[in-house]
Amino acid sequence: MGQAGCKGLYQSLFDYKTEKYVIAKNKKVGLLYRLLQVSILTYLVVWVFLVKKCYQDTDTSLQSSIITKVKGVTFTNTSELGERLWDVADYVIPPQGENVFFVITNLVVTPNQRQETCAESASVPDALCYEDSDCPPGEPVAAGNGVRTGRCLREGSAQKGTCEIFAWCPVETMSRPTKPLLGEAKDFTVYIKNFIRFPKFNFSKTNVLDTTDRTFLKSCKFSPKNPYCPIFRLGSVVSWTGSNFQEIAVQGGVIGIQIEWDCDLDKAPSECYPRYYFNRLDNRFSGNSISSGYNFRFAKYYRDAAGVEFRTLFKAYGIRFDVMVNGKAGKFNIIPTIINVGSGVALMGVGSFFCDLVLIYFIKKSHFYRDKKYEEVRSGQQGNGKVNVEQLQSLQTVEA
Amino acid sequence: MGQAGCKGLYQSLFDYKTEKYVIAKNKKVGLLYRLLQVSILTYLVVWVFLVKKCYQDTDTSLQSSIITKVKGVTFTNTSELGERLWDVADYVIPPQGENVFFVITNLVVTPNQRQETCAESASVPDALCYEDSDCPPGEPVAAGNGVRTGRCLREGSAQKGTCEIFAWCPVETMSRPTKPLLGEAKDFTVYIKNFIRFPKFNFSKTNVLDTTDRTFLKSCKFSPKNPYCPIFRLGSVVSWTGSNFQEIAVQGGVIGIQIEWDCDLDKAPSECYPRYYFNRLDNRFSGNSISSGYNFRFAKYYRDAAGVEFRTLFKAYGIRFDVMVNGKAGKFNIIPTIINVGSGVALMGVGSFFCDLVLIYFIKKSHFYRDKKYEEVRSGQQGNGKVNVEQLQSLQTVEA
Amino acid sequence: MGQAGCKGLYQSLFDYKTEKYVIAKNKKVGLLYRLLQVSILTYLVVWVFLVKKCYQDTDTSLQSSIITKVKGVTFTNTSELGERLWDVADYVIPPQGENVFFVITNLVVTPNQRQETCAESASVPDALCYEDSDCPPGEPVAAGNGVRTGRCLREGSAQKGTCEIFAWCPVETMSRPTKPLLGEAKDFTVYIKNFIRFPKFNFSKTNVLDTTDRTFLKSCKFSPKNPYCPIFRLGSVVSWTGSNFQEIAVQGGVIGIQIEWDCDLDKAPSECYPRYYFNRLDNRFSGNSISSGYNFRFAKYYRDAAGVEFRTLFKAYGIRFDVMVNGKAGKFNIIPTIINVGSGVALMGVGSFFCDLVLIYFIKKSHFYRDKKYEEVRSGQQGNGKVNVEQLQSLQTVEA
Repeated sequence: MGQAGCKGLYQSLFDYKTEKYVIAKNKKVGLLYRLLQVSILTYLVVWVFLVKKCYQDTDTSLQSSIITKVKGVTFTNTSELGERLWDVADYVIPPQGENVFFVITNLVVTPNQRQETCAESASVPDALCYEDSDCPPGEPVAAGNGVRTGRCLREGSAQKGTCEIFAWCPVETMSRPTKPLLGEAKDFTVYIKNFIRFPKFNFSKTNVLDTTDRTFLKSCKFSPKNPYCPIFRLGSVVSWTGSNFQEIAVQGGVIGIQIEWDCDLDKAPSECYPRYYFNRLDNRFSGNSISSGYNFRFAKYYRDAAGVEFRTLFKAYGIRFDVMVNGKAGKFNIIPTIINVGSGVALMGVGSFFCDLVLIYFIKKSHFYRDKKYEEVRSGQQGNGKVNVEQLQSLQTVEA
Repeated sequence: MGQAGCKGLYQSLFDYKTEKYVIAKNKKVGLLYRLLQVSILTYLVVWVFLVKKCYQDTDTSLQSSIITKVKGVTFTNTSELGERLWDVADYVIPPQGENVFFVITNLVVTPNQRQETCAESASVPDALCYEDSDCPPGEPVAAGNGVRTGRCLREGSAQKGTCEIFAWCPVETMSRPTKPLLGEAKDFTVYIKNFIRFPKFNFSKTNVLDTTDRTFLKSCKFSPKNPYCPIFRLGSVVSWTGSNFQEIAVQGGVIGIQIEWDCDLDKAPSECYPRYYFNRLDNRFSGNSISSGYNFRFAKYYRDAAGVEFRTLFKAYGIRFDVMVNGKAGKFNIIPTIINVGSGVALMGVGSFFCDLVLIYFIKKSHFYRDKKYEEVRSGQQGNGKVNVEQLQSLQTVEA
Repeated sequence: MGQAGCKGLYQSLFDYKTEKYVIAKNKKVGLLYRLLQVSILTYLVVWVFLVKKCYQDTDTSLQSSIITKVKGVTFTNTSELGERLWDVADYVIPPQGENVFFVITNLVVTPNQRQETCAESASVPDALCYEDSDCPPGEPVAAGNGVRTGRCLREGSAQKGTCEIFAWCPVETMSRPTKPLLGEAKDFTVYIKNFIRFPKFNFSKTNVLDTTDRTFLKSCKFSPKNPYCPIFRLGSVVSWTGSNFQEIAVQGGVIGIQIEWDCDLDKAPSECYPRYYFNRLDNRFSGNSISSGYNFRFAKYYRDAAGVEFRTLFKAYGIRFDVMVNGKAGKFNIIPTIINVGSGVALMGVGSFFCDLVLIYFIKKSHFYRDKKYEEVRSGQQGNGKVNVEQLQSLQTVEA
């Protein structure tokens, strides 16, 4: 290279190379290009930046902590249970106040079950028998309550009976009451505290209004008009899902309470507040008998004076509330901005690519523009002479 | 077209069309362009690739399984409960060792409650009465413990009393002890097993050091110096959140234990290890009396010899630990790499667009460069002659 | 500017500026460019669009609700418990049917524990003693069951004994049975209802086949051949994870049931169905004695006739099932499409950048092409004259 070469390289390093353009004085293509430019720019500004806020980095993996607390008492008077008052410790399962909680609204109680033998319930198809040989001993009854002892129990002179089983006896036989036991549960309230944090932005907030008014939370109720009070009346929650409380109280159900945080952290933190949505999460199944509603069985265990265990079996129907939190936060970030601006500029390239096609192939004078746009140069084995002649000709075309 | 046309097309198919550049020997713009190029390249390499690792495909939807096991016993001697030893089965709710568990640290016990009538607690505002008509029978006391029977119970000759209610009697009257019952809970330990899996990359790991030393987990304790031992002392966890254990033990609280996995799967699997963060999740509420701390009520049910149910009501204050796992894994993937390289190249286009503007409009000799950059061609109704003349003129400008 | 300038601006507004290209009649570079173009296009169409479906907007933050219901009874006959039948209320913890449930398969029962003093278990290393001074009173036994009373209990004339402790006595001493108590749990079934919703697309579905056949869910079992029946036999689930049921039933374990929804919402909703995956989530730990298997302790509390509390302590071994739902839905969206097309076009730019390098620096006639591609213009202090001469020379080079 030598010093001269180095100097040349150094000089050319700061030469600015700019693309040479051919100005095609063609109004149609020009207009088309401007239209494309304007639409791409409009799309970029309006849709990508204003509506979709693609200039923001988003965090959708929020951390959330839920504390729930149900309040309310109700009084029932039934033939099986007598006069009874139900308070929170009685009807909320589990008691801890987590994000999933269940409120008993209906009960089938089978008291004083002991481990012994009795007749299987007649409502279990597999337990029907005509004679002892229909009840192979030791075999559990399919979808039943115990294991067969080998005897077929028939009442009086009936031809048909049910197998004797070893089980928690007597077995549950009562069917679901058609009127909910705790229909008054609609007036219970639940207080939902939600604490969220977006780890990417280290931003945290709660759904409880930051107020100094100590009585606010004692007296308020959530309603679309009062969205900062996270105390919900169960009956209202059910009605907001479009369900009927009495119907869901009889056969049980699952209700989703969705708390949605959609936070633009480029704005003030107070602009970041939750919205609540209420959905019934089991009503798709109502057609299938096996899967309608929501219920489960649990038992309370006791010991008698002789130390023998007995239990009360509860088949609890009720409403399970699933508090689900989801959200996203967005904050200005240079990388998505650049990716989107870059994509927009590349899109402009797509626009001029399309206009080039029109100019070169689809308009009347396209042949003329093609010659102008593309300058043919040739080198190689054909020799310089030929090239020069061609170049000259191309020059003459311009001059002609 | 004919055979000649086909041949021409075939030939031109492998012509390489390259943009024609005008070299503007202008040091200022050249320098500007080089500066822009260098900054974009630096940004791309340093920020996008090295810091943000945008060449990686990321998976943020990890699957996680948590097993927790609390250990520790403590002894209390109070007037209500007498001498009592508390073990894990007594103070951990629920017992299953899931990711959310509650350790009782303080208790208000109301033993031997039965379904009968008694006076409502005087601390319930709605229960105050002067005469029987203040207690409409059958109506529940708002935020109270039962339904009114219709009588107003006044002690001695007091003017004011509380309504008689049908409820679990006697009602809870004791207030929260100011000294935690289980203050020694600070020495309990919890062992947290965490198994994670990133489904997109089919990568799974646990937070327990893969060691052959059987005594390691028997003796170790987690500390910032010993991060591979997932056995946490409750008192230390509370202190790491900046809270005072005795204070949280009295009124309860929620503590989040966040396990964060940030794994670069392009490195060795052993480089992928969890980090632990400890946060108090309820302290924002401390100003509001209704929402300070964390407590819930539960009951243990018994039957007496006559088969009548009675219960012991517990109002449990304590610490709920929410073990939350979040994480992301990244692995080299060609698609995000290409998107980012593509955006970078497009960004270079933005750079030259900017320099073009400067060259053509903002420098002294911009008019000269504009003429060089843009070669005006015209075709159409004006006739070829005019064009040719113009072209010739433009040629002459160069030659002149 | 004047009116003439405005008119000129208006006219030039609709001029179309198109880049001027130099056609290099070089077959090698031309072929190289075409090859690059074809590969980029193929990559874009096949990988980005067909395989990765990058033209879709995706939603990975799905909302999900799980209801589980275990069915089955089993009969055991052991020396401690006698003849006993186990039903769902006995062996499922917690009973509510949430997404995490535990099925007891093995039990260590310590009945009739009362708050009193007894000897600590000899299996606790810290409790061993030779004389009373080894048992400082009031101090809890590390990893033990109670607090020391100060006495060292030695049987007969043995030199070594264990400290007397105040605890729930007698302490748990039995070791884990080697044969599972509820080995028949393998024939239990669990019905898993899953309701999902993709909030971004407002699309919801369940995993239960939408059938009018009422007997379908009564009789079906899930199998790879019958994927629309969400009723799982526990034994099959365990075997699908590659584990042995008897082994996991003895020492417990955690099994993850993953429900994966991968929905292309551009297709029919019926094409969006779940896939099930079964994993053992604790087997990594099997080498460590402290962390093998899964068990926890819980107690049932009773009162005797005198009102004194006693309890039965259960150390439950069993299988915890974690039903985890994850999924993503994709739907055509213009923004990711544009970003990806834009990136593809930018990639083409990378291709021509590479070919330019080859053309200008790496082929034989590169000097010739360089001169053609770059048209040097110079302005400034050198005066117009010099420029014109250079321009003329460059023109002459072409003409020569």
